[in-house]
Amino acid sequence: MILCVCLSPALDITYRIDRLLVGATIRIEEVRTRPGGKAVNVAAVLHQLGEPVCVLAPVGGTVGDEFTGALGELGIRFDAVPSGRPTRRTVTLAEHDGTATLLNEPASIDCWDALVARIATRLPEAEVLVLSGSVPAGVPSDALSTLIALAHDAGRPAVVDTSGPPLADAVRARPALIKPNADELAELAGDEDPVSAARAIARTQQTIVVASLGADGVVAASTAQTWRLRPGRALTGNPTGAGDALVAGLARGLRTGADFADVLRDAVALSAAAVIVPYAGAVDDAEYARQRAGVTVETLDPVR
Amino acid sequence: MILCVCLSPALDITYRIDRLLVGATIRIEEVRTRPGGKAVNVAAVLHQLGEPVCVLAPVGGTVGDEFTGALGELGIRFDAVPSGRPTRRTVTLAEHDGTATLLNEPASIDCWDALVARIATRLPEAEVLVLSGSVPAGVPSDALSTLIALAHDAGRPAVVDTSGPPLADAVRARPALIKPNADELAELAGDEDPVSAARAIARTQQTIVVASLGADGVVAASTAQTWRLRPGRALTGNPTGAGDALVAGLARGLRTGADFADVLRDAVALSAAAVIVPYAGAVDDAEYARQRAGVTVETLDPVR
Repeated sequence: MILCVCLSPALDITYRIDRLLVGATIRIEEVRTRPGGKAVNVAAVLHQLGEPVCVLAPVGGTVGDEFTGALGELGIRFDAVPSGRPTRRTVTLAEHDGTATLLNEPASIDCWDALVARIATRLPEAEVLVLSGSVPAGVPSDALSTLIALAHDAGRPAVVDTSGPPLADAVRARPALIKPNADELAELAGDEDPVSAARAIARTQQTIVVASLGADGVVAASTAQTWRLRPGRALTGNPTGAGDALVAGLARGLRTGADFADVLRDAVALSAAAVIVPYAGAVDDAEYARQRAGVTVETLDPVR
Repeated sequence: MILCVCLSPALDITYRIDRLLVGATIRIEEVRTRPGGKAVNVAAVLHQLGEPVCVLAPVGGTVGDEFTGALGELGIRFDAVPSGRPTRRTVTLAEHDGTATLLNEPASIDCWDALVARIATRLPEAEVLVLSGSVPAGVPSDALSTLIALAHDAGRPAVVDTSGPPLADAVRARPALIKPNADELAELAGDEDPVSAARAIARTQQTIVVASLGADGVVAASTAQTWRLRPGRALTGNPTGAGDALVAGLARGLRTGADFADVLRDAVALSAAAVIVPYAGAVDDAEYARQRAGVTVETLDPVR
């Protein structure tokens, strides 16, 4: 089972509207809600692929009840830790011309100790720990490194997708793999070149770095090797969904222990097959099959 | 007790943000939720005034649970009729410079027959029936005239504040009082002049018309008389809150049976004291006391 810990779950609400006119009263034509938060999207892709998965997240209030219900409708196993602070909403205003405006409520929890205890309890049955998404208010600044240390204690690999200070904190605890985007990697390494930045982090932190570069594909670096992968055809669309599907592919690869070049190829194909789906947490099956045949893998460094 | 029937209740969510940039990802600085819908605002003002009041509304889903909880926090008596369709949300995006953008989810219910039966059960203990706000999808086109007929059967006066076809339907059933704004009155009467429009509706429909004209105050007409009222000092701010406070004052006046010129004076003072409160459903107590002394009442027609 892949344990997807979502510290900042959200009820994602999408409002379809004609046009967002500032200062107006706007009629919403259609309302869609989905359980959100990056780790939830990762879990939803893994679930679609038939992988055993469990989401572990704090939930609170009636929005938390709606989040729990929405996750149940997707059929995803859920381990909820009660929080005294309400689960947040995110609102996407989707206009007819394709423009999307996102409004993110702040995330906050009051159950950190209970979360840590629950994760420790679940880790023995987990094969991989996924830590994706932002870190809410109400947790200590070393939250991610604390959870990665738990994974080390249990002998489980941890996959991290976050940004800013939480990413720097996570890297210090040497997770098995991090998945930054180009900006997050540049900030972490202090180096704008993704190849040298990924190599530097991989070497100094003993961590596999898989950097997502949008339509340009992926640069990956381990302590021994560097890869450049490009999708068979570059697609544009939903970057959040693409990043989360990439993480899903990488987590599955760590679980099965496949050859890492093959894992990367598969994860890039999943990512390309997610970018064309308008919401995060799903891949287009037909596009996934096409992309698996088309992804190119280039080894930049021979094994030393 | 004043029975406030809210066919389209809402959970009103206000997001305080720096600036609404179309196409951007925007951090929400503060989230406020209140139970909403015009009849709920009327009830909240009456509750603030110490009047016995009950809100009767359809509720569904987890948003309905949150609505119910929010109403309970305000201490307002609530009679809920379960609906299979979720209670809607409204979202106000409030920018630092005062610009407000409103997003309204569509309202829909599936419990019309149960609502009618519940209202019929409650009417004997009600002294006034208030019907405020829009009419949701899922009810017949003669919904308001049906409810007004129930009030007639029970010998109770009905106060109506709505617009468009539901207002035209309501007027046919001869409610005790309607509270249109200038645009609603002009549409209903086919006459842009509020004085002659109010007189015409009052005479032909045997209904008291109290038309709210924003900062210009109120024109009111009964079959026998026409009044022009102006606040002691005209204030600008929240027009929704002002209209709902006006209805609250009128409903209280119908309950107590005070002299109608005094009822109008008091209701206009309440309205002016609500316009300066940034959310609907509350009046500023100090401003209410000041306005009560300052409202001017002009009788346009002598009693014939």
